[in-house]
Amino acid sequence: MPITRQELKDLSALRTKKGRRAQGLFAAEGIRLLEVALDAGRLPETLYYVPSELKLRGERILERARAARCPCVRLEPHQLAAAADTETPQGLIATFAVPRTSLAEVSPATHVAILVAESVADPGNLGTLIRSALAFEFSCVVLLGNCVDPHSPKVVRSTAGAIFSLTTVQAETSQTLQFLQAHGYHLVAASGVGKPPEAPPTAQRIAVAIGSEGKGLSQDLIEQSNYIWRIDHSGKIESLNAGMAGSIIMQALYSRRTSSVPPPST
Amino acid sequence: MPITRQELKDLSALRTKKGRRAQGLFAAEGIRLLEVALDAGRLPETLYYVPSELKLRGERILERARAARCPCVRLEPHQLAAAADTETPQGLIATFAVPRTSLAEVSPATHVAILVAESVADPGNLGTLIRSALAFEFSCVVLLGNCVDPHSPKVVRSTAGAIFSLTTVQAETSQTLQFLQAHGYHLVAASGVGKPPEAPPTAQRIAVAIGSEGKGLSQDLIEQSNYIWRIDHSGKIESLNAGMAGSIIMQALYSRRTSSVPPPST
Repeated sequence: MPITRQELKDLSALRTKKGRRAQGLFAAEGIRLLEVALDAGRLPETLYYVPSELKLRGERILERARAARCPCVRLEPHQLAAAADTETPQGLIATFAVPRTSLAEVSPATHVAILVAESVADPGNLGTLIRSALAFEFSCVVLLGNCVDPHSPKVVRSTAGAIFSLTTVQAETSQTLQFLQAHGYHLVAASGVGKPPEAPPTAQRIAVAIGSEGKGLSQDLIEQSNYIWRIDHSGKIESLNAGMAGSIIMQALYSRRTSSVPPPST
Repeated sequence: MPITRQELKDLSALRTKKGRRAQGLFAAEGIRLLEVALDAGRLPETLYYVPSELKLRGERILERARAARCPCVRLEPHQLAAAADTETPQGLIATFAVPRTSLAEVSPATHVAILVAESVADPGNLGTLIRSALAFEFSCVVLLGNCVDPHSPKVVRSTAGAIFSLTTVQAETSQTLQFLQAHGYHLVAASGVGKPPEAPPTAQRIAVAIGSEGKGLSQDLIEQSNYIWRIDHSGKIESLNAGMAGSIIMQALYSRRTSSVPPPST
């Protein structure tokens, strides 16, 4: 079944925030991302493919999607080129439903470690944070303020597919602080004005808050945090990037939870 | 003195590797990067500016460049737009000499911690690694294999100006291994097949090697390393990105060198 002109227009529009919001969908392209999505149990709403551009791994993705009764639509090479965000979509682009989880639906029993990203505007930084969150078992990412859309093509790519395995939630700061407090989360704020902890917190539930690179965290988050964590670094740079700072802190906390070795001084 | 057509063409050509190689120059634009360059004592070969686009901080950069007798050339807004790599160069773009340091010129007495980046192709990852290297006092970055050019506009931006304070060296693998061995560096290879160290190495001179995300480090580097360091992470992701992995290891080693607290388990 060939694609209609309107469908192609809709697919291309998923590169914009407006298009994603209007359709409730986002797109992911390329072999690796789609393999990760399928491995995570996330089925595309529609898989679009260019038969002549598929190699063995691409064919396998198509087979898996068909076996799962996912609609598969054939594209011409120029149609894929028009809809894709990268220059090498490897013959495949798929749409997925944008999850609409609210903070009230987040289960504190399931999500014992939460990453709070406030106004992280750089797609690479947010993607890195989401990827590191999954790596270090922070299973929920709460987005506050003016974060870049986590379902934009650049962020999706930067997560290396981690976006398919995590819960992402858009929320307000006051609501988030209430949620964390009500459920006994220990809130760690990453900031250049704190100090390296002598020992990372041992609370059962933990939230790590990372702010934008330019402005840092808002005063509300800093004031309501249980600990302000500064990562020691040389005076030769002004600050670490948000992706690195978050990754280092989440790794330190993960390492603490999973080992009996003395805690890091970070 | 207005810019000639040829000068503008040359300036624009610095966005390409070919242009940078032919001229021995690279470009940096925007207030923050140029402030960092001047603060690091790096003077532009030429500073180009659009008077009408300068605000207070931009004016101050122009003054500092003039005071240092750096050639300053006025551009029309459309000329800057044509030469700049970003959409918001903030009225300023400057050229700098590409340093040509060879490995033989690297002083082991000065550079006690070295980052070795092998075939890191992603500009954001290499930029992050360079920025983290400076943050954690790895003062020299040796580039092996097919790394992205560290003086490309995207990498320069990702370093947040750290590129102006570090020594970068392009070298061959065999030559680098000889250098490290001859000068008693402890070589730590980051790899998914190693194990988290019980205690980070305490060698006086240390080199950390990070490979490309797809392929990891080459066999030569793995085999010649003193330690293969795997960062513990959940099985939900296949690997960390090169920027994160390098930052986490460099931070752990920095933290070890600068504190008396027990070492992290990373």
